[in-house]
Amino acid sequence: MNKQAIYHIPDSRYCFPTGTHELVLRLRMAKEDRGCRVYLVSASKYEFYQERTCQELSVAYTDSSFIYYEIHLTLTDVRFAYIFQIEENGRLLYYSEDGVTETYNFKESFYNFFQMPYVNANDVMPTVEWMRGAVFYQIFVERFRMGNAKKDTSYLTMKWGEIPTPKSFAGGDLWGIIEKLDYIRSLGVTAVYLTPIFQSVSNHKYDIRDYYRVDPSFGDLETLKKLVFEANKRGMRVVLDAVFNHCSSSLKQFADVMEKGRKSEYYRWFLIEGDFPETEPCNYECFAACDYMPKLNTANRQVQDFLIDIGLYWIREADIDGWRLDVSDEVSHDFWRRFRKAIKNQKEDCVLIGENWHDAYAYLRGDQFDSIMNYSFTKACLDYFAWDRLDAKAMAERLSGNYVRNTEPVNYMMLNLLDSHDTLRFYTETGCRVNRLIAALALEMVYPGAVCLYYGTEIPMEGGYDPDSRRCFPWEESAGDINLVAQIRTLSALRKNPVIQYGTLRLSEEQGLLCVRRIYKRDEVRLFVNMTESTVEMKDTNLRLPETTAWNLYSTTNNQLEPEGYLIVEGQIKKEEMQ
Amino acid sequence: MNKQAIYHIPDSRYCFPTGTHELVLRLRMAKEDRGCRVYLVSASKYEFYQERTCQELSVAYTDSSFIYYEIHLTLTDVRFAYIFQIEENGRLLYYSEDGVTETYNFKESFYNFFQMPYVNANDVMPTVEWMRGAVFYQIFVERFRMGNAKKDTSYLTMKWGEIPTPKSFAGGDLWGIIEKLDYIRSLGVTAVYLTPIFQSVSNHKYDIRDYYRVDPSFGDLETLKKLVFEANKRGMRVVLDAVFNHCSSSLKQFADVMEKGRKSEYYRWFLIEGDFPETEPCNYECFAACDYMPKLNTANRQVQDFLIDIGLYWIREADIDGWRLDVSDEVSHDFWRRFRKAIKNQKEDCVLIGENWHDAYAYLRGDQFDSIMNYSFTKACLDYFAWDRLDAKAMAERLSGNYVRNTEPVNYMMLNLLDSHDTLRFYTETGCRVNRLIAALALEMVYPGAVCLYYGTEIPMEGGYDPDSRRCFPWEESAGDINLVAQIRTLSALRKNPVIQYGTLRLSEEQGLLCVRRIYKRDEVRLFVNMTESTVEMKDTNLRLPETTAWNLYSTTNNQLEPEGYLIVEGQIKKEEMQ
Repeated sequence: MNKQAIYHIPDSRYCFPTGTHELVLRLRMAKEDRGCRVYLVSASKYEFYQERTCQELSVAYTDSSFIYYEIHLTLTDVRFAYIFQIEENGRLLYYSEDGVTETYNFKESFYNFFQMPYVNANDVMPTVEWMRGAVFYQIFVERFRMGNAKKDTSYLTMKWGEIPTPKSFAGGDLWGIIEKLDYIRSLGVTAVYLTPIFQSVSNHKYDIRDYYRVDPSFGDLETLKKLVFEANKRGMRVVLDAVFNHCSSSLKQFADVMEKGRKSEYYRWFLIEGDFPETEPCNYECFAACDYMPKLNTANRQVQDFLIDIGLYWIREADIDGWRLDVSDEVSHDFWRRFRKAIKNQKEDCVLIGENWHDAYAYLRGDQFDSIMNYSFTKACLDYFAWDRLDAKAMAERLSGNYVRNTEPVNYMMLNLLDSHDTLRFYTETGCRVNRLIAALALEMVYPGAVCLYYGTEIPMEGGYDPDSRRCFPWEESAGDINLVAQIRTLSALRKNPVIQYGTLRLSEEQGLLCVRRIYKRDEVRLFVNMTESTVEMKDTNLRLPETTAWNLYSTTNNQLEPEGYLIVEGQIKKEEMQ
Repeated sequence: MNKQAIYHIPDSRYCFPTGTHELVLRLRMAKEDRGCRVYLVSASKYEFYQERTCQELSVAYTDSSFIYYEIHLTLTDVRFAYIFQIEENGRLLYYSEDGVTETYNFKESFYNFFQMPYVNANDVMPTVEWMRGAVFYQIFVERFRMGNAKKDTSYLTMKWGEIPTPKSFAGGDLWGIIEKLDYIRSLGVTAVYLTPIFQSVSNHKYDIRDYYRVDPSFGDLETLKKLVFEANKRGMRVVLDAVFNHCSSSLKQFADVMEKGRKSEYYRWFLIEGDFPETEPCNYECFAACDYMPKLNTANRQVQDFLIDIGLYWIREADIDGWRLDVSDEVSHDFWRRFRKAIKNQKEDCVLIGENWHDAYAYLRGDQFDSIMNYSFTKACLDYFAWDRLDAKAMAERLSGNYVRNTEPVNYMMLNLLDSHDTLRFYTETGCRVNRLIAALALEMVYPGAVCLYYGTEIPMEGGYDPDSRRCFPWEESAGDINLVAQIRTLSALRKNPVIQYGTLRLSEEQGLLCVRRIYKRDEVRLFVNMTESTVEMKDTNLRLPETTAWNLYSTTNNQLEPEGYLIVEGQIKKEEMQ
């Protein structure tokens, strides 16, 4: 047994509550030790020395190096003490806070048992329920659609459909989005997420000059209100982009510091080395190396108040349903804690989605974000579906490893995405092979958490790195790939299924196929993906999956009263009944 | 190489800031892999793909299973990306967010490098400076000294000095403590920590009836003010015990619920199953199984406000310097976050010390407590000094493993203790062998963090489990062990030394001795303890340590201008100069 591979920490992603009396426990062990039997020995912490129960754990996830045993518990006494007992070839070992030992002294256990602190109701992280089945549609507003033909268009610098440059303006606006809400809804979308819409001189508007004003080229407060109203009417929510790490150098407060230097009341809103901000060389902190985007000092209480007010203002005025948090990994934890409290207090199911590209558990403990943009999912999909760098086993392991980074409440709110305004388009990454895109979308659609479709994915649109990934939506051209649109609709519809919304995730490789199982009560949905170069005849189901990107989605016991083993939907091959 | 033993997580106890531009990074590896060379490859996250620096890490700590490499960094750009490069017999491996790999693609590294989020000033956990060199004296108030002979003594049920029962009263009070402040100070004490003093019918007062009133048998607000004033005058601070998990069933609010049931405005202050609280069987949550101590619902905002006000009241009125937080592991995280904010806002260097007996990292991330009662230190000392269960190597490893549970700012505030009102007296655990107690005290005194002496340790007092560990201080008897008192004074004086307050900790075994090194700038202090049954002649220093509990404390380059290799103080053997 590889004792040093064993890992567990209470009150962490290895032991977390899903209710005041519900706990999930995970124990990590080396992959090679799958033969071991693992038991949880537990009791109320006040009784642990005298009487305990013993329950066996089973392996729930496997990544490239480890297996993760998991157990779901319902407790009567939440003052919960436990150790693990590991059996290898009849030999018993103990794993406690003191590590792996050959004996364990239960009489002195109050010094070294594992303990899950009492679960108080407000420490249970709630899942924003609408996120479970959500399909987001991310819109880079300047390039989606121009809906107001009457507006002053003198700012436009390119024709709709031309290849964009970093600074070009094509004219997209909120009016255009409103016009296309029926279209968006027809894809099965349940939430629209817009890149920034507040006043700014750039096309991307990540350099905000006035956080309280919709950029006039996009619309105004009334336009936004109408957009939210019309979206809501169609069963869709609206999420906006909160750019709180930095602002435009033309923000009133920064301009004041430019003028008055240290004497400005806003001097400490920024991080300046010197009496006045200077650009050559830049003597203040900014986003990346962009001196026109000075960093806001989110450690400053006044800045915190300013940003919290903005967060509340747009909920109050426009009733939005969430904030995507730009460059959230460079903003203060302390600020996010205050921000969450304020937002959730005003609108409990307003979702907070961080832009953290890496393991963000430090932000996802229940006191800061609900979820993040799941770029580790993106990378796995690129490696498997686009770049042929992973086989099915390695893909199942990669996804599993990423999945156990977070607790269950978080995993059901993760924003899973294949691409965004900050990446190349996934379709382009696949070498414009639509079957690969569809297969990846099928995975995304059955995966726990919300789906995020970057606008135009359904056409599908091509696009290299920024600004090429921000092309104009080609409304005037053909309707795009009809098969792709149909598949997206079918798959989106599946997201209403409780199995997809609540089901446990299990990932594996079977006969060279990637197998994604979602299990909920007596129902189970299985997705099989074939990325090999051979046709696979499946043993259990008699299904036949042709080579490369064929997939099917299969329900073992469908709760819609269909017969057992019903084939719900499949890719590439034409639909066929079970044999 | 045991790849599965390798562990690192950014923004955690494996990577934390000690200033806005100072980071500490730790990497865990299997003990057997000590031969590997480990390098940190790092850059600003925006430049990582093109240019990086490479620095070698060294092993800082070793526990029973792992070695911990550590590096202290001063950064110019805190948008910090990195991976580890591990060299084994000329073979190079990479360790990133994707785990251990044989190659690493720097071009795509933004998907899988490790990243320390930007360090904003308010996310750096400050060390409460006075904790570094602190010597606490914990007093169980009812048994320390009766100072007010004029008070109504009709409540007394035992004579001073009799063996206490769970419910007996001997008469100790705040007046008595005030009388003995000079004595306490003479031991080198810098902080007095009192078990609860608010109105309660019990001798321990963990069942509080009125949080705004000093128990009349102990004194009143004026007595407390005088105690704080007199302590401060002598250079000592006062820390009180905050019992926030539960209260007395005679608390006004619980009494109201007893009377009005669900109709009481305080019904939701408690966790009751039923219309009224009932005791047979008990239908409400309480401390342990004590129905006279109903649990407060710290998830309730009103309860939070009530407790925060108490926390602030005693700082405002009596200017106390800290709260020890009773049963803190059963109180809401969310509450502790609010509590910390409120307390620190009122008095920045007011220390918050949780009563968590186990790994409490979830509370020690900077948003909740400063430190905890370090019972894992207690257990290690019991095993090594009292019970002969560990040799020097195992002791060094046990302490090291516990030490890396926390970040540096926390380690310098930990409340290290040998015993308390909740344990047997350490002296009793040693079988009343005073040399063993002294040796343990020597370790405690050179260890990072604050020392906590349970009242009477200096006599030394004996005591079994509660209530026997709460005996009356025998003022009328002889002055106790003069050698012990002298040693405590000498050791306490050392705590003013910057090496003890700021020095890095290194633990090892040398020639069968436990070696504790503290290193600060060009100074180093070393404690050697001999718990073997042989005399050890030390190679480097020519010091001679007789068998069992001999120890000496040795400075390699003393900053007080003494010659190099000065022997500061030693136990058991009489003082001798270096040869």
